[in-house]
Amino acid sequence: MRVIDGGITAPKGFLATGNHIGIKKVKKDISLLYSETDAVAAGVFTQNVVRAAPVVWNEELVKQREPIRGIVTVSGNANACTGEQGKKDNEAMAEVYARELGVAKENILTAATGIIGLPMPMEIIKQGIVDTTKHLSTSREDATKAAFGIFTTDTFVKEMAVELEIAGTKVHIGAMAKGSGMVHPNMATVLSFITTDMVISQELLQKALQETVHQTYNMISVDGSVSTNDMALIMANGQAGNPEIEEQSEFYNAFKEALLFMNRKLAMDIVHDGEGASKFMEIVVHGAKNEEFARRLAKAVATDNLVKTALYGEDANWGRIVAAMGGCGAYFNLEGLNLSFESERGKILSMEKGRPLWFDENQAADILQEQDIRITISLQDGEGKATAWGCDLGHEYVRINGEYRSRT
Amino acid sequence: MRVIDGGITAPKGFLATGNHIGIKKVKKDISLLYSETDAVAAGVFTQNVVRAAPVVWNEELVKQREPIRGIVTVSGNANACTGEQGKKDNEAMAEVYARELGVAKENILTAATGIIGLPMPMEIIKQGIVDTTKHLSTSREDATKAAFGIFTTDTFVKEMAVELEIAGTKVHIGAMAKGSGMVHPNMATVLSFITTDMVISQELLQKALQETVHQTYNMISVDGSVSTNDMALIMANGQAGNPEIEEQSEFYNAFKEALLFMNRKLAMDIVHDGEGASKFMEIVVHGAKNEEFARRLAKAVATDNLVKTALYGEDANWGRIVAAMGGCGAYFNLEGLNLSFESERGKILSMEKGRPLWFDENQAADILQEQDIRITISLQDGEGKATAWGCDLGHEYVRINGEYRSRT
Repeated sequence: MRVIDGGITAPKGFLATGNHIGIKKVKKDISLLYSETDAVAAGVFTQNVVRAAPVVWNEELVKQREPIRGIVTVSGNANACTGEQGKKDNEAMAEVYARELGVAKENILTAATGIIGLPMPMEIIKQGIVDTTKHLSTSREDATKAAFGIFTTDTFVKEMAVELEIAGTKVHIGAMAKGSGMVHPNMATVLSFITTDMVISQELLQKALQETVHQTYNMISVDGSVSTNDMALIMANGQAGNPEIEEQSEFYNAFKEALLFMNRKLAMDIVHDGEGASKFMEIVVHGAKNEEFARRLAKAVATDNLVKTALYGEDANWGRIVAAMGGCGAYFNLEGLNLSFESERGKILSMEKGRPLWFDENQAADILQEQDIRITISLQDGEGKATAWGCDLGHEYVRINGEYRSRT
Repeated sequence: MRVIDGGITAPKGFLATGNHIGIKKVKKDISLLYSETDAVAAGVFTQNVVRAAPVVWNEELVKQREPIRGIVTVSGNANACTGEQGKKDNEAMAEVYARELGVAKENILTAATGIIGLPMPMEIIKQGIVDTTKHLSTSREDATKAAFGIFTTDTFVKEMAVELEIAGTKVHIGAMAKGSGMVHPNMATVLSFITTDMVISQELLQKALQETVHQTYNMISVDGSVSTNDMALIMANGQAGNPEIEEQSEFYNAFKEALLFMNRKLAMDIVHDGEGASKFMEIVVHGAKNEEFARRLAKAVATDNLVKTALYGEDANWGRIVAAMGGCGAYFNLEGLNLSFESERGKILSMEKGRPLWFDENQAADILQEQDIRITISLQDGEGKATAWGCDLGHEYVRINGEYRSRT
């Protein structure tokens, strides 16, 4: 596998573009994706009890294994808590895009992100789809435009592409994703779209997606809030022409490995671009009683407001880390706990076998100046390990979310 | 029952005081409480896996039903994650105070609040206990000094006293409590101390405490972080001379009612004084499937960072409330949801039967200017109801917790 320059249009037969159509004031607010030929699709969706109209629509189509030809995403309005009208509006979005492409509405997936509970500005959206479809292309630039079009409060583009060889055939995977608030995925993710020209069965596509999302998007948190609109979608149009992947072969494993790599990178990008975030932390837990406990402990640290503000303040306040772990409901034996934090500037062990160690506060301050910090938590309760990613909580998060609705 | 002027020394036979002994830079950092005669004691303690030395010490003494004569609390150092040395230091604290009072160390409960993981400055503490014991008194002023002595980052005193009549005998209850960060009690509370001169059995004292804490302290959240040091303690020294309360009689109910009233008031005070808080919200849920679901939904709203920042920004962003409810794991039927918010300036219904209602944003802004906001969530899933209390998340919280350790 190698990383190549490109985004969502890197695999053969995928076109995309993004545009500003007037839902937001100035920024891009629509993103279109199109596959020249039928694609098998897989998806994972938010576990929030309240689910936006596109989530409901897509889940049904993926379940029915409809051949998929495109995805239309609008940003600025989440189409969540919008009742029957929201469902109709969502279907109309699919319908208009399908008509422009000359396919059926059941071949079109949808997505939305933005404010919850506002009616969709359908005249703007319908006209916008018609206008924007004309610009679909396979170009590098249009892939990036599409990645811009799914932004909520994101500040940089999250896209990537890789190439790998399957039984002598070159296949490609392209992806784009967005954050950056209400990010605490639960069995799903923020918005993440992946394309591939690989030939693969729907079962294995779904399996690879689910398993990699579990280890990547589901292990990040920006603010502990589970969104109503989260989803990860993957389309495989088979244009690479490799022998179809129908079992968990070495080729499946190579594909899954590539997907894991990409999802991890994009998930980390989302945290780096977390609303108001100035710092990034990777929390590595090993030696927990089991994997589930390791996951809960790592996420508890990533989510804790006191840990997050300490990170913001560059304060080696490791007591807050231990308190966050203790409060999350996953048991651990304090006597077996080693805790260290590190950055490119060095590493400090702050606790050993559950006991605080003296450390040089000046050295700690120096280490914590860096943007990327790794916290390693070593336990002696079992074989469970997990990694989670989080960001700091600073003034910028408060500013963004204290005035969100007036700002889009 | 009537509220009377006074605090922890209002019941007969209780003395108290607070002092600055040098753990903190300038603020009071020790609080002493003393009962002239043996008291029965009850307590509830944090469910954090990591428990501070005083929590472990007290739980054992309460379980053994030791007669209790006093409580010594230090602030500025939590004596948590301090291992064997922390346990020894805690015992030494009890020992010195016991010696000064002429009782056994097993008659003394302890508490600590402050930074986690630092060794206790025992020379300062021992000398401080000796010096401060001399000032114990039954005065109103010393009750308040004691309430100051348990402060962490609190900004105002939380104390109260009530008088009620039990079978013709006047009995009194006094209380003090503190917050104000790492406040998200789980089956326990922050620090809360209650005294009463009532004659009551230990079983019923424990029962009344537990049940009222469940509805009060356990329903507040400042920042979603469960402390390692939380506890609520109650001492009943029987000096009022009422017929002993040994069963769940009308007198028990009157006592429990008074306790509920006091714990609710102090719990709300803690939220009002939440770290950096400028606004207070009461979240009332009714019609949930059961009480447990109602509690989880109400607390999910109180804890959600996006709801908290919207409150800070005086933004009627009710979509975040619905998303927070949906993400907390407690099921509800969206079609039965009514949602309103109100303050002294008026009330707005923003959602009815799961559908958004148009409302006047200017009126909403006017209502949200107030400090105290009530959010009412009405469901049609069952009889479950609960109330939770929370505060906003603003710049001041970030400021306080980005620089906590250097500030005490």
